Amino acid sequence: MSDFPENATLGSVPESAVLARIFPRLPHSDATIIGPGDDCAVMRAPDSRFVVTTDMMVHGPDFRLEWSTPHQLGIKAAATNLSDVAAMGAKPTGMVVSIAAPKDTTVEFLEHIADGLKDACEELAPGCGVVGGDLSVSNTLAISVTAFGDLEGREPLLRSGAQPGDVIAFSGRLGLAGLGLAELFAGNKNAGHPLALTAQLAPWPPISQGVAGAIGGATSAMDISDSLMMDAGRISQASGVIIEFSEQALDDLAAHLAIEIGVDAAKARQAILYGGEDHALLMTFPADVLLPPGFTVLGTVKTVGAEEHPHVNMGEGAMPENGWNPYTDWNGEIS
Amino acid sequence: MSDFPENATLGSVPESAVLARIFPRLPHSDATIIGPGDDCAVMRAPDSRFVVTTDMMVHGPDFRLEWSTPHQLGIKAAATNLSDVAAMGAKPTGMVVSIAAPKDTTVEFLEHIADGLKDACEELAPGCGVVGGDLSVSNTLAISVTAFGDLEGREPLLRSGAQPGDVIAFSGRLGLAGLGLAELFAGNKNAGHPLALTAQLAPWPPISQGVAGAIGGATSAMDISDSLMMDAGRISQASGVIIEFSEQALDDLAAHLAIEIGVDAAKARQAILYGGEDHALLMTFPADVLLPPGFTVLGTVKTVGAEEHPHVNMGEGAMPENGWNPYTDWNGEIS
Repeated sequence: MSDFPENATLGSVPESAVLARIFPRLPHSDATIIGPGDDCAVMRAPDSRFVVTTDMMVHGPDFRLEWSTPHQLGIKAAATNLSDVAAMGAKPTGMVVSIAAPKDTTVEFLEHIADGLKDACEELAPGCGVVGGDLSVSNTLAISVTAFGDLEGREPLLRSGAQPGDVIAFSGRLGLAGLGLAELFAGNKNAGHPLALTAQLAPWPPISQGVAGAIGGATSAMDISDSLMMDAGRISQASGVIIEFSEQALDDLAAHLAIEIGVDAAKARQAILYGGEDHALLMTFPADVLLPPGFTVLGTVKTVGAEEHPHVNMGEGAMPENGWNPYTDWNGEIS
Repeated sequence: MSDFPENATLGSVPESAVLARIFPRLPHSDATIIGPGDDCAVMRAPDSRFVVTTDMMVHGPDFRLEWSTPHQLGIKAAATNLSDVAAMGAKPTGMVVSIAAPKDTTVEFLEHIADGLKDACEELAPGCGVVGGDLSVSNTLAISVTAFGDLEGREPLLRSGAQPGDVIAFSGRLGLAGLGLAELFAGNKNAGHPLALTAQLAPWPPISQGVAGAIGGATSAMDISDSLMMDAGRISQASGVIIEFSEQALDDLAAHLAIEIGVDAAKARQAILYGGEDHALLMTFPADVLLPPGFTVLGTVKTVGAEEHPHVNMGEGAMPENGWNPYTDWNGEIS
């Protein structure tokens, strides 16, 4: 190791040497039977099922190196996938990670991504680790993660399980990541509120609340990745119900966020409803269930009337405004 | 569907509309409990384990749109991952697929990738299908696949299991893909031998031979993705043995390939030993085992002597020559 060149890049040292530097930094998975080094990893699936999700982050539409450190990229790549596993009510067990990076990317940069993956796994999902991966060169930096989880014998939480009479509740934070992105686009990388910037750049979702919600009786769940309105809309569509947010609950959340971050309440409320990438967990529970600690009620689930379609009723005064959609809004620039 | 715009691109229609076009074309997995549409898929793992591998293909180092059709890209993305599952002695059950593509990519292009994924799964690994994915925009086209498999109660085949006294054998084709790549680099996309070009652009590995080899008593296995020499070297290192190829076996293979493709025997032999991306299956078997149909003996496994290290003995007359290494050899150009 001592003769590893300083400032080595992907293009200047053999792939095997790069992997030898990165592998020891990756988090270990307790569910591994055979780890990295063979054609496949072999993973435990104790209840004869596993959940799987995948998400790719691309430089430009999904992140900017001008804004994110590689450590933050590692955290975000892990956290967004872990959040999807949690949203099924499953315990994350492992992930595979593919990175495509320009040849002038330093090995140190990749090490910091690995450290971010490790910190996110160890803190958010103890026992979950990286069990395999792939390293490629590319003109565009991209990080692709596929994560697995264990339902531990429980039924998966689906978007389609919400029942009229349920309450709808969330765990995590709402609005912070959207406010953080607005600060970045406004050029306030150094002046914006640190909580908002961190929520956007290195999200820290409540992964263990997925299992807690499932054990606590949740009837449906999803990860709020696009926005509370859009994702609640998906539960309402999948379940064939109306979701009615409580004016008071939204006002309380907005007032709290406004004080915490120093924005006005209307802006806070809009961020809560329409901001993306919060990765809070949205779940419905029967009304007679004691909510697990850390869940906050947002409203109720109602039957769709004769003249109605499934929809979300957000209360008064909120004006729809779309957040950043990397799929349609990105103009091809990366800085 | 009828009002879907002709020549629609990723940038001109909503993501949901693109996915609505692609989803119905994807192959179905028999191991699916919950398919695409929720935060995760839920997969069966009948023996309480699953194998997992991941591989990303990037435009430039790993493929060129000048050479490959999108249908071929879909086949190659699936086949290379299925081959890793087969190399563990497992039956492929499912895969997730992430695609990052420029905004001007047509939806039709993505449909053809989906058709390639479907053809590869249905023909090479019946019952295996796509259970989830992600679609992103990017300046660089990349396809990332993570594939799963079922060991059906058997022990996984590892690189480390070869024993002195074993024979080493392969199933599939050797040398064709390397000859095909040489034709492409030489500008013979239309003049090269179709078998060689197809082996490179749309590999068709012997996936079912993974299970056949495992049932047939194989002691070690791997997918020949880099080259016979390099990958046999990995088995020799992992198992702590010497692998000695038979001069006669290599001569026979080279003579056959030379006649089939119309190259001289020395070139054919070099392609067999040093060409990459064949995705043949390399396995070792006890000498007293009747090889499963479709396996051809290449040589024998020997004990490492007192003054030796594990290595591969390739017989006389072959000169090492490295094939294309996308990691080090790519110069950043994509056409």
